[in-house]
Amino acid sequence: MELLEERIQSDGKVAPGNVLKVDSFLNHQMDPQLFNEMAKEWYRLFGHKKINKILTIESSGIGMASLAGLYFNVPVIFAKKSKSINIEGEVYKAEVESFTHKNTNTVIVSKDFINDGDRVLLIDDFLAEGSAMLGLIQICQEAGAEIEGIGIAIEKGFQKGGERLRERNLPLRSLAIVESMDPETGTVYFRENDITPVD
Amino acid sequence: MELLEERIQSDGKVAPGNVLKVDSFLNHQMDPQLFNEMAKEWYRLFGHKKINKILTIESSGIGMASLAGLYFNVPVIFAKKSKSINIEGEVYKAEVESFTHKNTNTVIVSKDFINDGDRVLLIDDFLAEGSAMLGLIQICQEAGAEIEGIGIAIEKGFQKGGERLRERNLPLRSLAIVESMDPETGTVYFRENDITPVD
Repeated sequence: MELLEERIQSDGKVAPGNVLKVDSFLNHQMDPQLFNEMAKEWYRLFGHKKINKILTIESSGIGMASLAGLYFNVPVIFAKKSKSINIEGEVYKAEVESFTHKNTNTVIVSKDFINDGDRVLLIDDFLAEGSAMLGLIQICQEAGAEIEGIGIAIEKGFQKGGERLRERNLPLRSLAIVESMDPETGTVYFRENDITPVD
Repeated sequence: MELLEERIQSDGKVAPGNVLKVDSFLNHQMDPQLFNEMAKEWYRLFGHKKINKILTIESSGIGMASLAGLYFNVPVIFAKKSKSINIEGEVYKAEVESFTHKNTNTVIVSKDFINDGDRVLLIDDFLAEGSAMLGLIQICQEAGAEIEGIGIAIEKGFQKGGERLRERNLPLRSLAIVESMDPETGTVYFRENDITPVD
């Protein structure tokens, strides 16, 4: 998605250790007009799949998923991160390692909101090692829900997440795939991404 | 806001200890169409105030604030909750007690995103004791930003937050104010709320 790639190039900050900071428009300060265009693009890619729920994960996925929810006209659920071992009520749980924060969270979703037969679109801001997304996938599978689409804003192509999902034939589309980054010049190089609607 | 009051009455759950659970449409599963109507209503109440930033707090405020950002056509910043004492970079900090979770979080906002002269709309899903909102207000004051509006989805009228903000003459509008709740019958009683645009 050209608009997103341009924005990453102009406003993203490349730091050593393959860190891409996009907190001026994506995950601390957010640009709702950009999210609106991303939502339209996800609707173009997944809109024909009779999706009835969107599932994302707190906190950075919530804004863009809410906009997507408007176009798909479906409820948006956000999985909650919790460090507590004892979780009240009936919930699905998955363990998620954070690449950025170097810790592990338990991610939970109430059993009231994902059910057998649901047709789910998963949305997140970043795909790096894929741990968060694999957690959401595990929750959907446990619930008996179908994964009809996985919409990512920024995939870090040099990490393993994309490969992990594609080799399982999951219907993944990333709006921008970063091939590499140069912390010296701040240049971000993008890989060509698949812009065809999922089968 | 009639639509929100009706939704609270139909889908909210009243539990003992003055707990109102709205996780089926507001803070775990979210209804983007409802958020869109709430965003329009906030625009009616605050749209004339030349607001240039919206500030909310993770996680439940993010979805509704993102929709509001579309109408106001401004960036939306979410304050981050952090338990760590050492925060990297240049940030504003405030201590926020959680009524629900019975703990204290440090709430942080990067100094890059709230500046002297900004005209800010604060948005949050709940106003109970007002601790989160007072934290955001403190951050705006420290930044030298003007608070042009405070938009709350659900105010718990029987707790002190609303009073605390109104006695400081802050431009607060709550879309629904809960006067009391009956856990026996599940009935929620609403107080009449001010629906006039702020001065």
